[in-house]
Amino acid sequence: MKKMSCVFFLLLACTLISEAAADPLPSWNSGPAKQAILDFVAKVTDPDSKEFVPVPERLAVFDNDGALWPENPMPFQLAFALDELKRRLPDEPAWKDDPMVQAALAGDLPTLLADHYKGLFHIIDLTGSGMTTEDFANRVRAWFATAKHPRFDRPYDQLAYQPMLEVLAFLRANGFKTCIVSGGGADFMRVFAERVYGIPPEQVIGSNTRTVFELRDSGPVLVKTMKDLFIDDKSGKPVAIHQFLGRRPIACFGNSDGDKAMLEYTTINNPHPSFGLIVHHTDANREYAYDSSPKSSGKLVEALADAPKRGWIVVDMKADWKKIFAP
Amino acid sequence: MKKMSCVFFLLLACTLISEAAADPLPSWNSGPAKQAILDFVAKVTDPDSKEFVPVPERLAVFDNDGALWPENPMPFQLAFALDELKRRLPDEPAWKDDPMVQAALAGDLPTLLADHYKGLFHIIDLTGSGMTTEDFANRVRAWFATAKHPRFDRPYDQLAYQPMLEVLAFLRANGFKTCIVSGGGADFMRVFAERVYGIPPEQVIGSNTRTVFELRDSGPVLVKTMKDLFIDDKSGKPVAIHQFLGRRPIACFGNSDGDKAMLEYTTINNPHPSFGLIVHHTDANREYAYDSSPKSSGKLVEALADAPKRGWIVVDMKADWKKIFAP
Repeated sequence: MKKMSCVFFLLLACTLISEAAADPLPSWNSGPAKQAILDFVAKVTDPDSKEFVPVPERLAVFDNDGALWPENPMPFQLAFALDELKRRLPDEPAWKDDPMVQAALAGDLPTLLADHYKGLFHIIDLTGSGMTTEDFANRVRAWFATAKHPRFDRPYDQLAYQPMLEVLAFLRANGFKTCIVSGGGADFMRVFAERVYGIPPEQVIGSNTRTVFELRDSGPVLVKTMKDLFIDDKSGKPVAIHQFLGRRPIACFGNSDGDKAMLEYTTINNPHPSFGLIVHHTDANREYAYDSSPKSSGKLVEALADAPKRGWIVVDMKADWKKIFAP
Repeated sequence: MKKMSCVFFLLLACTLISEAAADPLPSWNSGPAKQAILDFVAKVTDPDSKEFVPVPERLAVFDNDGALWPENPMPFQLAFALDELKRRLPDEPAWKDDPMVQAALAGDLPTLLADHYKGLFHIIDLTGSGMTTEDFANRVRAWFATAKHPRFDRPYDQLAYQPMLEVLAFLRANGFKTCIVSGGGADFMRVFAERVYGIPPEQVIGSNTRTVFELRDSGPVLVKTMKDLFIDDKSGKPVAIHQFLGRRPIACFGNSDGDKAMLEYTTINNPHPSFGLIVHHTDANREYAYDSSPKSSGKLVEALADAPKRGWIVVDMKADWKKIFAP
């Protein structure tokens, strides 16, 4: 009898394990969103299907803030910039008379965001220009090692959405190339994207500027500037996809109106089968709930309205996601 | 006796075949250049070596014109642009009064190249702006299907250097990511790079501009412009490598002073072992011979002078390459 129950539990364990292994999206509840992802991948990877897509054409693009990790109470890169202002303030006496620095230090986001070029980009210039690309990456690394999210009390790079990490891994396991196409700064995201998302730097597209090459005694360096600032948002996203990747995606994952143009570029009259998905933030208890009136970035009105006619899948975070973050 | 010789020839054939299979660079003559490539790849891929480089860090960058295919009697993209001028002239009456169009049609390269912005870039603007990216790619495709190189009497895309194709394949077989970093236009090169070099569009970096996104009745398009023209040459090459790839290469292959900055960026004080190589055009019989006074682009003076102190390998095309083109 003892032997029998031992065998029974062993069999049960095996079944559970194999079921878990069989589900590539274990953090997703069963429902239309999960099923749509599974169905799309199944059909484009089936060599006997008319909708089969060859591996090199399997390109998937992801927004970052609000799609792969939160963007509240402010985009994480802005939190980094504000912390950098504080850290460097003692060595930058001129900053005391800078109204935007004062607004930033006071947490006065409306003033900072009223005119992006006078406010936000000025802060990004102060904290992200004039140093080498290596210096900047080291500062970002140091910040991730110490800063914590005010609500979740975790390092910011431990706040990737577990269900989306599973989508990334599932797509890659099926021959997709996964790329980030985000309004965030490329140099900021590339510091953690490989480690956190498994996405190498050359597949991370973000807002960007040109550096300046210098051959110093210590060796070659690239100095960060604000030259040719390109904002990788809205219609800039398909523009950047063409400029950096040079081919049309067949799958696109976003969460805001800033992603509408790349959803359109991916899904309208694409000669290949295509897939668009919007993460709708509906879970104030476990994460945040917002669309038309976000606390910071992430406004979602037009893309949500277009979703039914475009066939874009809308994820109801509260209903569709079993968990939000990795334990 | 008959049986014996049969066995003998079979053994001989097997030996020859296995020797050929064992040599990843069969179109290279034995010598220091070939040996340097083999040694570098052997050491960075040996997990027991102190100089081992993990796969994601194995990034190799290649110039295109003069490094992967010829740039004489003019860069192939310029030949395309001139042919496009001729093809479209009947439908573009305004071009008759354009002095640079007239210079181009007369083959007057010195006038075209005297001021790049008034000459060459103007021609590139006329032939490469105002249409969608798909239209442009179709025009390039149609040109490759019909145009032939004046000296070699072959389609231009059948003029890749066989020894360099072997280097590309050898590096990829050893976990390298191979990328083009060229002064040529990205949109032009991406049409053939995957088919000819096995390099996908997202790994083709070239001179580039921004497109404009439009959602038309027929679907989304990107319209080519000359906005934010970036010339991917000289110090622009390391700048573009950072912007597009976000990590430092460990191997760099060029042929002109336009590649000097990216050779420096790759090889000077790189924390990883690194490799630089210059293709020196020394073979007037089989290809071309030039360095300080090229017929078109490809001037090679400073990089050649720096090669010994930087440890860059200089390929003597005449001596090092068994063949130039695939048969």
